Amino acid sequence: MRSWRRLLAVLALAFMATGAQAQERPKIIIDDEGFALMHLMLIESDKVDVVGLTSVSGNVWANRATAMQLKGLEITQDEEIPVAEGATFPLVNTEAMTDRWEALYGKLTWKGAWMKEWVEPTVQSTPAYYGPHDPVELPGGNAKLKKSDEIAANFLIRMVRENPHQITIVACGPLTNLALAQRLDPEFASLVKELVYMGGSLNPRQVLDNVSADEFAREFVNSPRREFNARFDPEAASIVSRAPWPKLVMIPSDPSTGAQLTPELIARMAKVATPEVAEFISGMETGFPMWDEIAAAYVLDPSLETEGDDLYVDYNTQFGPGYGDTLSWREHYQPGLGEQKAHVVRAIDAQKLEAMMVEAMAEGNTAAR
Amino acid sequence: MRSWRRLLAVLALAFMATGAQAQERPKIIIDDEGFALMHLMLIESDKVDVVGLTSVSGNVWANRATAMQLKGLEITQDEEIPVAEGATFPLVNTEAMTDRWEALYGKLTWKGAWMKEWVEPTVQSTPAYYGPHDPVELPGGNAKLKKSDEIAANFLIRMVRENPHQITIVACGPLTNLALAQRLDPEFASLVKELVYMGGSLNPRQVLDNVSADEFAREFVNSPRREFNARFDPEAASIVSRAPWPKLVMIPSDPSTGAQLTPELIARMAKVATPEVAEFISGMETGFPMWDEIAAAYVLDPSLETEGDDLYVDYNTQFGPGYGDTLSWREHYQPGLGEQKAHVVRAIDAQKLEAMMVEAMAEGNTAAR
Repeated sequence: MRSWRRLLAVLALAFMATGAQAQERPKIIIDDEGFALMHLMLIESDKVDVVGLTSVSGNVWANRATAMQLKGLEITQDEEIPVAEGATFPLVNTEAMTDRWEALYGKLTWKGAWMKEWVEPTVQSTPAYYGPHDPVELPGGNAKLKKSDEIAANFLIRMVRENPHQITIVACGPLTNLALAQRLDPEFASLVKELVYMGGSLNPRQVLDNVSADEFAREFVNSPRREFNARFDPEAASIVSRAPWPKLVMIPSDPSTGAQLTPELIARMAKVATPEVAEFISGMETGFPMWDEIAAAYVLDPSLETEGDDLYVDYNTQFGPGYGDTLSWREHYQPGLGEQKAHVVRAIDAQKLEAMMVEAMAEGNTAAR
Repeated sequence: MRSWRRLLAVLALAFMATGAQAQERPKIIIDDEGFALMHLMLIESDKVDVVGLTSVSGNVWANRATAMQLKGLEITQDEEIPVAEGATFPLVNTEAMTDRWEALYGKLTWKGAWMKEWVEPTVQSTPAYYGPHDPVELPGGNAKLKKSDEIAANFLIRMVRENPHQITIVACGPLTNLALAQRLDPEFASLVKELVYMGGSLNPRQVLDNVSADEFAREFVNSPRREFNARFDPEAASIVSRAPWPKLVMIPSDPSTGAQLTPELIARMAKVATPEVAEFISGMETGFPMWDEIAAAYVLDPSLETEGDDLYVDYNTQFGPGYGDTLSWREHYQPGLGEQKAHVVRAIDAQKLEAMMVEAMAEGNTAAR
């Protein structure tokens, strides 16, 4: 939403209720590889205060993700939110290693920035292939907004040290930035309020019956423990899983099989959003499972969850058939190598998710008036 | 040497020769896990300008290494050299993982900060065991000097960006800080002048015939490809080996088998050093192969080398029997996974090394007068 108008709305609310209430909105940093509905939900919502975006390579290279985030903030007119560019490369994994891995162990369905073509015909579009340092020219032109001078991991460390135990990080891409931050500053994770991340996969099953759902099931039917974010930077996922977050919530791919982005949902959101946001979301490709939107919605209201579990989680960093796979254990079975207990969201209320998405867009529009 | 006196000496030299000559001393940052002869050689020498020290966990935890470096700079009276504390933990490897590894694949000779006791009786002393965050009280008291506010990886990035293609990094501990810097800033390595690192092992053979040499041969006789720095953080060693340094020099353990720190050498150095440095080095334990001193001497004068090779080098990051082992290939045989060509020092002139060490101490004393 337009920030200065939100400020006015918040001030008005402060007069109506208590000033403290308005100040207590949870502070959020979104760490992700682009700018999409998940960002809009958190930025447009009245319930949280997004205090920064960080980019990382994953679906696209970090420089492209940064450009998308800057553009996104122009669309929502939240130019005061800083965007810090994150890691261009995963810690250890590389495009060349992934080529070799596929030659040994079989093809990956999705490889993000390393994707040249789908293995078999797919209704989803094929993204353009770029090099890590190729210049970025977004359709419609780049934003005038500039990224922060800070590197994402340093931005995360500074923000968390300035606001100890107050910042919720919502991470929906590979976990490279968070792993770097933790190795740069061993107290980093302990000073965060909560990490909610989309990553990993336990045992998803196809719920919806349509072409997109059939096709996305390719990602897990023969590899239920593989998920893109973790597979792109397995070492980072393991480092993050072993860091001492006061609260750690994992959104694996499991709950997303029942939540698909449809033209109907986009229309519902566009109807209530600001004209700029409506235009932006009306151009979005549909058919995707709403992986990241579940993470954002969980942060706004954890009662979204209909089935959950507390498990010890880690990621396989062995460069074998299971590289990047999710490892999980019930309490008492974990190896004790530092892996932390995570709250794992196994299923959600998809109707509620949709309602929350529409509500967030409406809140952004109300505040903008 | 005392810095302000060195400044006077340099100014005097500038009058005698050209000002430019004095300004062109190569800029050095030393990345290491303590403060020892290697630091003294570079700091006391007239030939180079040490512009920073960074610490890292390895032989000791990073906080102890930092304290040792601050104390060292008080001894040499170089209080203007900044000390930036580096990574407390390796990227992926951990003490707990190393315990499991030893239970699977056999005992390591040396584990640095994770060392509780020697496996069998050894003439070298057993270091005290500490936790990563235990407070540090050095014998004789800690330095009054304070460490920099910057994290080592950030200090390295800033210095290299402020002095592009001018800084030589001499790294003699695990390569965690350099790996972090490269992942934070993908241009970092390309902006360095040269990296000279002590790490890795190709095929060392015992050269000297005494108890210490016999005992240190345990480190390589049955594991010629294993070396402590690389084994402590194998992922960092691999990241660094794949980074685009304009020039990369590897000092493996091989050339150190012919170069042992003896009481005679210490006496020669103490005789010509400043009283403070003489007292410091006179307390040093002898019997060690001079791993790091070779790296420092190579930076001062590469003609130290008597046998070298240009090889592609990487490190094994598979958590199996060869975890952390050195991988090397002649040109044309490398896999092409990003591994870089390194100049590998295979043998050195040990007498020349000793003479250079004595010379550096004398230079520091001359400048201090």
